Amino acid sequence: MQEVKVIEIKKSIFNANEIDADNLRKELKEKKVFLLNLMSSPGAGKTTTLIKLINNLKKDLKIAVMEADIDSDVDAIKIFEGTGVKAIQLHTGGMCHLDAEMTKQGLDNLELDVDLVILENVGNLVCPAEFDTGACKNMMILSVPEGDDKPLKYPLMFQVCDIVAINKIDCMEMFDFDLDRVKGYIKQRNERAEIYPICAKDGRGIDELANKIRREIKEWRK
Amino acid sequence: MQEVKVIEIKKSIFNANEIDADNLRKELKEKKVFLLNLMSSPGAGKTTTLIKLINNLKKDLKIAVMEADIDSDVDAIKIFEGTGVKAIQLHTGGMCHLDAEMTKQGLDNLELDVDLVILENVGNLVCPAEFDTGACKNMMILSVPEGDDKPLKYPLMFQVCDIVAINKIDCMEMFDFDLDRVKGYIKQRNERAEIYPICAKDGRGIDELANKIRREIKEWRK
Repeated sequence: MQEVKVIEIKKSIFNANEIDADNLRKELKEKKVFLLNLMSSPGAGKTTTLIKLINNLKKDLKIAVMEADIDSDVDAIKIFEGTGVKAIQLHTGGMCHLDAEMTKQGLDNLELDVDLVILENVGNLVCPAEFDTGACKNMMILSVPEGDDKPLKYPLMFQVCDIVAINKIDCMEMFDFDLDRVKGYIKQRNERAEIYPICAKDGRGIDELANKIRREIKEWRK
Repeated sequence: MQEVKVIEIKKSIFNANEIDADNLRKELKEKKVFLLNLMSSPGAGKTTTLIKLINNLKKDLKIAVMEADIDSDVDAIKIFEGTGVKAIQLHTGGMCHLDAEMTKQGLDNLELDVDLVILENVGNLVCPAEFDTGACKNMMILSVPEGDDKPLKYPLMFQVCDIVAINKIDCMEMFDFDLDRVKGYIKQRNERAEIYPICAKDGRGIDELANKIRREIKEWRK
C-alpha cells in the first residue's frame, strides 16, 4: 500500500473567499493548469468515476488528484492504486467543505507541472456548493439511488455545477429513476449545465465525459 | 395537496448550543415528549422510512413530524399524505444542519400533546452530526448504495447515533455491500449503536425498528 501524503488543512480566518478564489483562478490560468472541483453526496461514486476518468484522460494529459476527506486516507490510496497518478489526501479536520484558501494549501503541496488537477470535495450536497474553491469548473455526480428529485432539494449544488454526471444508470429501473424528469429539474435550476449519464462500474458514458473535460481544458488554455 | 406550514428558521446568534440542547431535553422530559433526530445522506430514504415507521407507530402513539429542508416542501407533504400525522416544514435558509435553538423554533410551532416528535434533519452526513439538536436520541439511515465503508469516512455521524438503520437491503448484492463488514465498522466507531437492517420499500425490518423506538420512548418516560 502506498504511503499517502496527508495535509491537515486549516480554515481561513479571513472572510474573503471570493477574492481568494479569483486569485487562485488567475494563478492557475497563468500556469495553464485546469482545476476541476468534483462534488457529490456520500457514496455517489466519486472515487470510482475518477479512476475510470483518469485512466481515459491520462493517455494525453498529465493529472494530479487532491482527495478531501474528514478523516480517512482510503480515497487517495485507491486513486493511486487504480491509476498511478499522484494523489494527495487533504484532511479537513471535521470541516464539511473546502474554500479557496484550503484548496490553495492543497495545491501548494503539488508540483503544478500538470494539465489537470482534480479536487474531490467532501461528500456533501449542501456546504461545498456554498464555497468557491477557485476551481475553473465545477462538476457533480448525482447517483441514481439518491432519486431523481434531488435538484429540487439541493438547488444550489445544481446551480453552481457546469457538468452533472448521473451515475449508476445500470439501476435506473430498480430505483424508478426517470432520466428525462431529472434532466428537466436540472435545467430548471441551471440552463447551462451539461448532463452526462454514466455507469462508472461498467464504463458507460466515461468517454463522453472525458471528452467534455478535454474540451474544457482546451478552452481554459486559450 | 395539503398546504404545509413552513417556518423560516434562523441561526442562533449565541454560541451555547450544548446548554440550549440540554434545556430543550429537560423541557421535553417534563412534557413526556420523545424527540427523535433522524439523519442521513441525501436520498438514503429518510422520508419513505418515516412513512412506514409512522404507520406502524401511530397505532399506539400520537406523533408529529418536523421536516427540515433547505428550500422545498415536498417531504412534509409526502409525510402528511402518507400517514395523516401532522407534519411541518422547517426551512433552514441554506443552512446545512439544525441546532437546538432552530429545533426549538420548530417545536414552538407544534402543539406538544404528542408522544413522539420526529425531526428529519437536512440530508448530510457531516454537519448535522456536529450539532446537538436537543433530541432524546439520534438515529441515522445508511443506504446500501452508499457503500459499506461509510463509517470510516463519516465517523462522527456514526459516533453520535444510538440507532443505525441500514436501508435498501434488497440491493446488497448489486452494490457488493457486506452487512457484517459494515456492522464491524459501525461498532468500531460506536459500541452502543444498535443496527437495524431494513427495506423501507417492502417493509422488511420496520416492525423491529418501530419496536426499538417504542422501547426508547418507554425508557424516556420513566
